[in-house]
Amino acid sequence: MRVAIAGYGNLGRGAEAAVTQAEDMELTGIFTRRDPSAVRVASGTAVYSFDDMDSMKDDIDVMIICGGSATDLPVMTPELVSKFNVVDSFDTHANIPQHYANVDAAAKASGHIGVISAGWDPGLFSLARVFANAALPCGNDYTFWGRGVSQGHSDAIRRIEGVKDARQYTVPVEDAVSKVLSGEQPELTTREKHTRECYVVAEDGADLAAIENAIKTMPNYFDEYDTTVTFISEDELKEHHSGLPHGGQVIRSGRTGWEREYHNSVRFMLDLDSNPFFTSSILTACARAAYRMSQNGETGARTMLEIPPILLLPQSADEVRAHLL
Amino acid sequence: MRVAIAGYGNLGRGAEAAVTQAEDMELTGIFTRRDPSAVRVASGTAVYSFDDMDSMKDDIDVMIICGGSATDLPVMTPELVSKFNVVDSFDTHANIPQHYANVDAAAKASGHIGVISAGWDPGLFSLARVFANAALPCGNDYTFWGRGVSQGHSDAIRRIEGVKDARQYTVPVEDAVSKVLSGEQPELTTREKHTRECYVVAEDGADLAAIENAIKTMPNYFDEYDTTVTFISEDELKEHHSGLPHGGQVIRSGRTGWEREYHNSVRFMLDLDSNPFFTSSILTACARAAYRMSQNGETGARTMLEIPPILLLPQSADEVRAHLL
Repeated sequence: MRVAIAGYGNLGRGAEAAVTQAEDMELTGIFTRRDPSAVRVASGTAVYSFDDMDSMKDDIDVMIICGGSATDLPVMTPELVSKFNVVDSFDTHANIPQHYANVDAAAKASGHIGVISAGWDPGLFSLARVFANAALPCGNDYTFWGRGVSQGHSDAIRRIEGVKDARQYTVPVEDAVSKVLSGEQPELTTREKHTRECYVVAEDGADLAAIENAIKTMPNYFDEYDTTVTFISEDELKEHHSGLPHGGQVIRSGRTGWEREYHNSVRFMLDLDSNPFFTSSILTACARAAYRMSQNGETGARTMLEIPPILLLPQSADEVRAHLL
Repeated sequence: MRVAIAGYGNLGRGAEAAVTQAEDMELTGIFTRRDPSAVRVASGTAVYSFDDMDSMKDDIDVMIICGGSATDLPVMTPELVSKFNVVDSFDTHANIPQHYANVDAAAKASGHIGVISAGWDPGLFSLARVFANAALPCGNDYTFWGRGVSQGHSDAIRRIEGVKDARQYTVPVEDAVSKVLSGEQPELTTREKHTRECYVVAEDGADLAAIENAIKTMPNYFDEYDTTVTFISEDELKEHHSGLPHGGQVIRSGRTGWEREYHNSVRFMLDLDSNPFFTSSILTACARAAYRMSQNGETGARTMLEIPPILLLPQSADEVRAHLL
């Protein structure tokens, strides 16, 4: 299976590691918008310009698109699926139906498969919700994120005047998790579910009180949360906060039975030292499934909810049934 | 969707509750090997003899087979799939490939879908293993069961001379779970993973020491475990041990990355007040998927690993993508 990567940021580097280590895949090339000769690639794989893609259509079975959901993927995925089978990690939940429709139309027109919104949320967390809802139709879903770094919130702090660098951790409230697991099925406000911890490096002479106030009152990002702000040095940030760990959990609490009612909980948890490397490892498994669906004559858009799970693994279906069922 | 149930034990009663409460399903009938007039049915659904099945082929879209894996299902599922789309909960892991082959042949010959091994282990736990292996190809799987009642082990104790009744709980060793979550990837022996707690009601005048010894040295069931035996009264058993709670967890601990390695864990946990009612709720969701696959022109055997997850829910694919992705 000949796989290529479009985009070489954190996600692209993760996909490079995952594809290189997959025994059933060959990494054909990495495409970049930068000057290819200026991109150092860990695996030594050939680096090409985006402009070279068209001439390589017959050399690539699946393209893993490693771009951002805000501006890259809405354009790139429909465009690239008209040339290749593709996988993306589009994660703007509210816009998924529109993105699905765009990719589906382009994929059907060109005879390709386009897997969208692969990763862990959307992705594995969505699957956990679907299985838990299937098993427990009567119940409530809860999602907790963290403890982990939110890149969007970290970026929002960096845009405040006087801030040199920042790292924001999303932290689930343990008491809320306990309440959910007890079967109480509580209604939880935004503030009751998560707290936000900010580690901020200020410019020399910056007004720290003003920065703290700007963070805590920032609409959408922080105003609905209990937020703590800690000023640290650049060295401390580098030493203790340079990683991109993340994780979280999906819980469904619900009942079965009828004459008598039984309480049940389904819980799916992730604890990740590197958010982008885990996400791109899932993108790589979805690339395998995309290729197999395409080989099977299927076309159109797919999410992980529509992929038979067995297609994600390199082993044959017989082997998987014998050893993992 | 017209659904029927074959077999009316604990699983059958759970399926009755689940089908009756599913808005897109109608419970057409319950089939029993006993005298139908002697079977009290909670929902008031019509009860038929197994012999009536043939004449009702056109009235039933999916049959949920609620039988035991040891002797019932190996015969019933291939037989019934030649007449209906079916779902079973075959859980003898070692014999799944043979059962799959038998059901696949009969299902293809008759043009039906046969979903086998639905439930939580095999079933949701298998799915957790597949997704975790797809995301973390380098790593180790761990499965812990309990705390919960093992019916097989309880039955084994009941067969000992002098035992009137018994309940056996399988209990995971917390220290082993902690080691796995820490990322150590330990190799764990049977004894290190679970302990077994037995609550036993003895006949009057029975030799308690002999019973305790017979339990603790029983091959396959208890000899490889740290087992505790507590003698209790019949009333205590009824009051404190009458339920069939179960649960457990699947953990995969693995690494991503390449130039640098990152540790990750994926964990799926179940906590169930009633094991049979949860299992039959999953069988019911699989009945929905079986019907949809059949409507789509597919035939043959399927496990939950081969079913596109979105088919398990009553909502349309558009709705699921918009709300659960």
